[in-house]
Amino acid sequence: MIKAAVVGASGYIGGELIRLLWEHPEAEITALVSRRYEGEKVHRVHPNLRGLNLRFTGPKELDADVIFLSVPHGTSMRIIDDYAGSSKVIDMSADFRVPLELYREYYGEHLRPELLEEFVYGLPELHRDEIRRAELIANPGCNSTAVILALHPFRDLVDEATVDLKVGSSAGGRKGGLPRMHPERSNAVRVYRTHHHRHEAEILNETGVRAHLTVHSVDLVRGLMATMYLRIESDRREIYRRLLGYLKEPFVRIVKDRRGIQRLPDPKYLIGSNFVDIGFECDENNGRVILFSALDNLMKGGAGQAVQNMNLTFSLEETTGLRRLPIYPV
Amino acid sequence: MIKAAVVGASGYIGGELIRLLWEHPEAEITALVSRRYEGEKVHRVHPNLRGLNLRFTGPKELDADVIFLSVPHGTSMRIIDDYAGSSKVIDMSADFRVPLELYREYYGEHLRPELLEEFVYGLPELHRDEIRRAELIANPGCNSTAVILALHPFRDLVDEATVDLKVGSSAGGRKGGLPRMHPERSNAVRVYRTHHHRHEAEILNETGVRAHLTVHSVDLVRGLMATMYLRIESDRREIYRRLLGYLKEPFVRIVKDRRGIQRLPDPKYLIGSNFVDIGFECDENNGRVILFSALDNLMKGGAGQAVQNMNLTFSLEETTGLRRLPIYPV
Amino acid sequence: MIKAAVVGASGYIGGELIRLLWEHPEAEITALVSRRYEGEKVHRVHPNLRGLNLRFTGPKELDADVIFLSVPHGTSMRIIDDYAGSSKVIDMSADFRVPLELYREYYGEHLRPELLEEFVYGLPELHRDEIRRAELIANPGCNSTAVILALHPFRDLVDEATVDLKVGSSAGGRKGGLPRMHPERSNAVRVYRTHHHRHEAEILNETGVRAHLTVHSVDLVRGLMATMYLRIESDRREIYRRLLGYLKEPFVRIVKDRRGIQRLPDPKYLIGSNFVDIGFECDENNGRVILFSALDNLMKGGAGQAVQNMNLTFSLEETTGLRRLPIYPV
Amino acid sequence: MIKAAVVGASGYIGGELIRLLWEHPEAEITALVSRRYEGEKVHRVHPNLRGLNLRFTGPKELDADVIFLSVPHGTSMRIIDDYAGSSKVIDMSADFRVPLELYREYYGEHLRPELLEEFVYGLPELHRDEIRRAELIANPGCNSTAVILALHPFRDLVDEATVDLKVGSSAGGRKGGLPRMHPERSNAVRVYRTHHHRHEAEILNETGVRAHLTVHSVDLVRGLMATMYLRIESDRREIYRRLLGYLKEPFVRIVKDRRGIQRLPDPKYLIGSNFVDIGFECDENNGRVILFSALDNLMKGGAGQAVQNMNLTFSLEETTGLRRLPIYPV
Repeated sequence: MIKAAVVGASGYIGGELIRLLWEHPEAEITALVSRRYEGEKVHRVHPNLRGLNLRFTGPKELDADVIFLSVPHGTSMRIIDDYAGSSKVIDMSADFRVPLELYREYYGEHLRPELLEEFVYGLPELHRDEIRRAELIANPGCNSTAVILALHPFRDLVDEATVDLKVGSSAGGRKGGLPRMHPERSNAVRVYRTHHHRHEAEILNETGVRAHLTVHSVDLVRGLMATMYLRIESDRREIYRRLLGYLKEPFVRIVKDRRGIQRLPDPKYLIGSNFVDIGFECDENNGRVILFSALDNLMKGGAGQAVQNMNLTFSLEETTGLRRLPIYPV
Repeated sequence: MIKAAVVGASGYIGGELIRLLWEHPEAEITALVSRRYEGEKVHRVHPNLRGLNLRFTGPKELDADVIFLSVPHGTSMRIIDDYAGSSKVIDMSADFRVPLELYREYYGEHLRPELLEEFVYGLPELHRDEIRRAELIANPGCNSTAVILALHPFRDLVDEATVDLKVGSSAGGRKGGLPRMHPERSNAVRVYRTHHHRHEAEILNETGVRAHLTVHSVDLVRGLMATMYLRIESDRREIYRRLLGYLKEPFVRIVKDRRGIQRLPDPKYLIGSNFVDIGFECDENNGRVILFSALDNLMKGGAGQAVQNMNLTFSLEETTGLRRLPIYPV
Repeated sequence: MIKAAVVGASGYIGGELIRLLWEHPEAEITALVSRRYEGEKVHRVHPNLRGLNLRFTGPKELDADVIFLSVPHGTSMRIIDDYAGSSKVIDMSADFRVPLELYREYYGEHLRPELLEEFVYGLPELHRDEIRRAELIANPGCNSTAVILALHPFRDLVDEATVDLKVGSSAGGRKGGLPRMHPERSNAVRVYRTHHHRHEAEILNETGVRAHLTVHSVDLVRGLMATMYLRIESDRREIYRRLLGYLKEPFVRIVKDRRGIQRLPDPKYLIGSNFVDIGFECDENNGRVILFSALDNLMKGGAGQAVQNMNLTFSLEETTGLRRLPIYPV
Repeated sequence: MIKAAVVGASGYIGGELIRLLWEHPEAEITALVSRRYEGEKVHRVHPNLRGLNLRFTGPKELDADVIFLSVPHGTSMRIIDDYAGSSKVIDMSADFRVPLELYREYYGEHLRPELLEEFVYGLPELHRDEIRRAELIANPGCNSTAVILALHPFRDLVDEATVDLKVGSSAGGRKGGLPRMHPERSNAVRVYRTHHHRHEAEILNETGVRAHLTVHSVDLVRGLMATMYLRIESDRREIYRRLLGYLKEPFVRIVKDRRGIQRLPDPKYLIGSNFVDIGFECDENNGRVILFSALDNLMKGGAGQAVQNMNLTFSLEETTGLRRLPIYPV
């Protein structure tokens, strides 16, 4: 059994990690660290975990083969030395996802630049072999995962892309504030970020494409939808052919049907699963291709992908504990 | 023109008062007091009021014929002397709604018990004439309004009632806290209050019926639904007959249809209006009557009723500025 | 491996059965019957099942150890002869849940009254041993499950109960009609059924309590909440003691906390799981007890319970394939 | 008083027209035509109109100064002769919005091409004077209104635009079908239309810009948000300057704040009002401008604009009956 610990276990990603690790046949949870909730029962914060008899602990020496750092951006690089070394680390923050130059452009100064090269970018579809050998893994952002996987097969055809994102409220974590209260966030279509979104750095680094992200908050708790507008003179057959490279991927599905309730990707049909669905349409008359990419932001966009990385780096079957079908309808 | 001021103008009830007063043909707003947002543009807090060029002011001497106190419970009785006297006061808090004994049972000690008898309970359907002559008006609670109007015609038939309430998130105002964030409050059916709800005091005082309120928060922003279970041996005709007393009331409607989308009251069909819809069903075989009462908690359950009271006390047509049809569908 | 077939596989309960059977370690799906969608890919109707490469078939001779009849009320008794005999049958309809007399009172004439005694009522917590030996199982209704399990420990103390239910739209299945369209059903608190709900028959039969059900549709897709008002002179300790009988039940949890996000049952925290959460409050001053019962209507209220019954009748560990934690937040 | 009739009065746009005309100080309703609901009370279909004592009538000779044709696309051109001539006609369908060539490209054959030039495009901000003199008015589409008003000031700077739209379910009218049922449409982010949307024709005709529309259905009943991506080398000041042309428009607001709940347009804050809010952001480093445009699809995107047109063509103050502030929060 892999001994697993979660640092920052009280957030939504932290809670999802606990759920997945608890149900994982090859992992056991050895510590759930939360400064704020030290000593509290876990179900006080994550009601779905009632009955598991787990408690949060304070920061301490951890008995763990792998540690998931589920802490805010900027915190991981401050606490990394407490955890790296004896355990493998899978970092959920943005601290170690991109090279220094890009980090500086999008985030600012980095406290531990020398560590950046030690980390492997944890997107299995693009870095499977490196992940298998990695000690330090930077788990991708939710938007980045959706966009990179969709753009990657077309990276030789485009330099840039316009990306319109629609995201649920769980992506914002448990931060407070009036705009995130139910009366304000319900029935809204709010511009969350107009441009220069930090996830652009990862996308550029992984695909070479300069994606321009505009993020909208919609009335949804869990789920993320990316619509990508590209200038490509091509036809359906060619687009489809390039996406077929994902055919053997266990968690990437091409969704483009003519009939049925779901003809193109929709996060509604992915709740609780680790799939990312990718679809497309060709607007041939105008030399345009539109890509659609949907995922569950707490799963393939967060905790699910982290467990996928854990599986790889401990030489388990990649899909262990992740073969769950989506819950529908919710 | 009636000069109107709102103290505590940054809450949801405060915002609704501004909207109604702005559109009111016989009123003009002379001050919008908010300690927290003093000097700020009103639309920063109430985005629907963009373009009106209003600003919040700090507490000060007000030039007003009527002052709406839209402050938290317990605050009105502390600041009442600053406002009463030269102006009429319509108090949105619970401070002056019930006699001292009931206040003590449900709220605790009262700072200004001698003022309690000065206030008129601002439910026009029951106290229209007193309101016309009043200088100090205690505006009823949202739950109380829905329940009192439904129970009143049956007060001689029952001593008590079981009341199950479903309420939207705007009823909780702008208070923060994790349980009220969008990810937690969406898709929830949460028990907000199991029993001994404070609004029971008003209901008891106005009807003599001991109503047992249990309040559930549902995924709704605006709206309130009360389902009342009574032990009454009666038949439909008799129930209907008693409700017919409301026939001339401009804001009370009896809703009991056999066909159509809406056969019984539903707050969905009352958004933005001052109506309270009352319906019923007789379970004759079991000696039971079920009453249904729905309203918009910010209108008839709050600001709308306050303006109705203002109209009465300034000898205007009672419906002035309030004849708005509900917005549908929302 | 248990060979399992679903007849009526295109509804929401049918889809949930497919999901559970697909993930079940001891079951294999041998047929998914849908007259309407015969020959169609299953994911056309259940988008969450994309990639499983399943198709609906027409009615035919089935190679199955167990057949789930997921057809409308009244249909099961018409087609039962086609399926019973060679296979065990778990009937999701209401056709075989109650004795003839009750059936007649609540539903009308029965086509196969002689079969009623052959069926076992599939509520494992009350009929575990009978289910183990059963060939024909009548799976309980969603409301009934929530109410019976909550009322059962108190059946000697009360003759009747007032039950206020709040249900999601998936409970209505895939029936069409204007009132169930998104613009009408969103933001609604609609009275779906005022009294004499058919599920009262099951509750009466199982507990001896005459429960008066009033059902409200709220803006929720999946989930069910029952609030039960009882006349009981008792105290918290006694109520708690009686509920402790469920302590060893794998899918019943007592939820009554003083702190945390969830203090009483809420279907929000049960999505995708087979738990039923039961909580309570004593209003001792008024001789009242309020019970709260929440579940996922497609799981413990439908397909999950059916699989629980399958496990029992095939001598598997009762929780096989059902030990899923709820998905949160959704 | 203007005598007004609505043909096709049972749809959502029809219902909104009734609401606005009922509250309009200079209009009176003389007929509400609905073949399907002939003889029925209006509140059976539009529950918000309960108490108005209105009934639908069948098609007949109408006593009206103005007739609103609120019928499906393709129907207006078939029935126009029954209504035009003695009354002014405001057509809500797409039948007479664009010249023949564009109509053929986007819709197909036209039954009455000779009438196309008779119609004035009813977008007051661009065609106020023509509307004043018009007998036949083609009311714009909801998407078109949002996009045209945002793009128009920049029409000399761009040839094309990428437009990502998020729309509520009321835009789909009362059409049935599984995908529009509550369990399927809730919590969804569904691609409704990938490209070659018919509203592109209007946009091209009014602005000369080839807008590429991609429409997403989000979990919202009322409201529409358009995000427009343009290639413009410019700066904030210049963008702002061009939008200032709308300063005197009563129903166009420029929304671009640094603080507050709403910093850019959001349909949440427009419910029930006739405003269209336009905002923008400059991504100067990349030569991009992003425009945001929000409106209430049943008001400025439908019935509200139609009444605005009615006001103009009957020489009333343009804002008569339309000066309503948005309802917030909903």
